[in-house]
Amino acid sequence: MSNPEYVVTPIGRVVSPRAGRADDEWGDVESIIRLDATRFTADALAGLDAFSHIEVVFLFDRFDESQVSTGSRRPRGNEAWPKVGIFAQRASSRPNRLGLTTCELIGVDGLDVRVRGLDAIDETPVLDIKPFVLEFQPRSAVRQPAWISELMVDYW
Amino acid sequence: MSNPEYVVTPIGRVVSPRAGRADDEWGDVESIIRLDATRFTADALAGLDAFSHIEVVFLFDRFDESQVSTGSRRPRGNEAWPKVGIFAQRASSRPNRLGLTTCELIGVDGLDVRVRGLDAIDETPVLDIKPFVLEFQPRSAVRQPAWISELMVDYW
Repeated sequence: MSNPEYVVTPIGRVVSPRAGRADDEWGDVESIIRLDATRFTADALAGLDAFSHIEVVFLFDRFDESQVSTGSRRPRGNEAWPKVGIFAQRASSRPNRLGLTTCELIGVDGLDVRVRGLDAIDETPVLDIKPFVLEFQPRSAVRQPAWISELMVDYW
Repeated sequence: MSNPEYVVTPIGRVVSPRAGRADDEWGDVESIIRLDATRFTADALAGLDAFSHIEVVFLFDRFDESQVSTGSRRPRGNEAWPKVGIFAQRASSRPNRLGLTTCELIGVDGLDVRVRGLDAIDETPVLDIKPFVLEFQPRSAVRQPAWISELMVDYW
């Protein structure tokens, strides 16, 4: 089976008060996703403000591609947690370096999407914005291991 | 601000009974995400089965890039629904052509991730798999417009 590469182009960038890497306390961070004015007008965001939340796909561009993990590792290097596969965790050191976060939409102003709780540092390239849709949520009971709940305690 | 392109490489492909485009009735579709055996071993999926659901980022590769919408359009061309921006809907005709779906994890078998409710057709390139984590869900009340609830009625 052929496995071609694909090119993606940021639709915009994050403008955040956080410029450096940080593990925790993202919940109250207010930031802006600023669409690329050379490619978009406010029309691309028409009606977005009818949604309370959005899903943001971004790229961990500051993470060195040569350090990407393709196997397993302990989340945050914590010995108390199990060694799990890179696709069983949400670490940035993943193939394609894609981040994905649901955040609260504060408002839309021209090409600026103002959000709360986006865990992406300043100037992070954004690849997509999708409205958060209730029907896209799990339709059966959710189960997750204890280690991830422990990891998330101080995240927001 | 510079706006470079990035290259992404599929981590695997979808093996689905659905080979052609379909709008609705995805809920019971069982499919497989098969990781690229030239790059990964089962180690990349270690511990994933402790999660009940996963989030899958994929690429609508059968959608012609030249037809991508950068402005607004009526979802499914339906005159009953408002014209909304491409980032206020989840249509495939979007910049970067990224799809994103939460689906139920049936099981993991070597390099195969068996899922239910993945709305991606056979051979779709998959760019990422992330575990579904409750703490990544909205922490405030969710609101969405009526048109999207109407669109989703027969989706699953």
